[in-house]
Amino acid sequence: MKAHTEYLTFKTEEKVEFVRITEKVAGVVAKSGVKEGFALVNPMHITAAVIVNDNEGGLIQDYIRTLQKLVPYDAKYAHNVGEDNAAAHIWRQLMAHQVVLPITDGKLDFGTWEQVFYCEFDGQRTKRVLVKVIGE
Amino acid sequence: MKAHTEYLTFKTEEKVEFVRITEKVAGVVAKSGVKEGFALVNPMHITAAVIVNDNEGGLIQDYIRTLQKLVPYDAKYAHNVGEDNAAAHIWRQLMAHQVVLPITDGKLDFGTWEQVFYCEFDGQRTKRVLVKVIGE
Amino acid sequence: MKAHTEYLTFKTEEKVEFVRITEKVAGVVAKSGVKEGFALVNPMHITAAVIVNDNEGGLIQDYIRTLQKLVPYDAKYAHNVGEDNAAAHIWRQLMAHQVVLPITDGKLDFGTWEQVFYCEFDGQRTKRVLVKVIGE
Repeated sequence: MKAHTEYLTFKTEEKVEFVRITEKVAGVVAKSGVKEGFALVNPMHITAAVIVNDNEGGLIQDYIRTLQKLVPYDAKYAHNVGEDNAAAHIWRQLMAHQVVLPITDGKLDFGTWEQVFYCEFDGQRTKRVLVKVIGE
Repeated sequence: MKAHTEYLTFKTEEKVEFVRITEKVAGVVAKSGVKEGFALVNPMHITAAVIVNDNEGGLIQDYIRTLQKLVPYDAKYAHNVGEDNAAAHIWRQLMAHQVVLPITDGKLDFGTWEQVFYCEFDGQRTKRVLVKVIGE
Repeated sequence: MKAHTEYLTFKTEEKVEFVRITEKVAGVVAKSGVKEGFALVNPMHITAAVIVNDNEGGLIQDYIRTLQKLVPYDAKYAHNVGEDNAAAHIWRQLMAHQVVLPITDGKLDFGTWEQVFYCEFDGQRTKRVLVKVIGE
């Protein structure tokens, strides 16, 4: 079994921002030399998520508006004593925070519209995402 | 390490429909010959989810009603320009879109009530779900 | 490839309770002898979740209040005929029910604030969580 681990770094301009990272993840998979296996893409910070969804700007607005409607960023939260990011912690759970991606024949085994996104919910500072590939 | 990949195909009668697929997934696990490992079950379309939950018709209604209450299918969405499925993209995230299943002694290592479901949120057309097993 | 499986048991005092289990999971990883791989942490009951988030009491209150606001425990549900736990089934999906954890150099490869929690949504009875480690 092979294993290969890389850490991607992000510092978004906005507090809330979606960054498409499909090619970055595919690059790690290529470097790993794994032909059959899984790639785990996991934010190492607990106010961010990694998802697979559609690369369409309107939809990204819809995600953010929905999260803001369900769990308003500026509402009162017990966590927000000296913090202001309780909603970011909750948003990442609602979006399902991590993904495991299939690798077949050395490539991400994706449908036509599957794209990987890093979803930053408390940005403007440096954050890391782990990409770990295992397989053969 | 062994790896085995299959693609399940679904075309639901309803736009929104839950299909129980535990035996289909168990069949792929059996064919793989893997005794100890993981099975990833991942929709290849981004308006569907795969979940593990209870095989109870009332609960499935409750899921759909809850999603409809939180993120109404027919509300206004930026994505819905020539599309009508923004809510389906969002629902799949709220439901957590994929599962990784444990395989022990050649079988899905499940509790009494765990069942795998394909959750279609924009159906009536052909869609694929990847089942990938790795292990030994 | 190595594989190692353990079953953790919980019986919470409260119906809804978050239990930090990072050290328990790390102990299973240590026993597995796996240096590079993945650990799947999966509740075997469908009214509970395992998540990675912040060990901060205020935030745990915020999660529970948010879930209660979005999907009230005591509302009417089709599932609640002889049952009272429909909301618990739904909460576990909204929180994303399972996690896959990276193992690097024999340890959980975590950021500073990542902590593993067992989230019980229908407690006061004995329940199991599977921890399965694969790798080398």
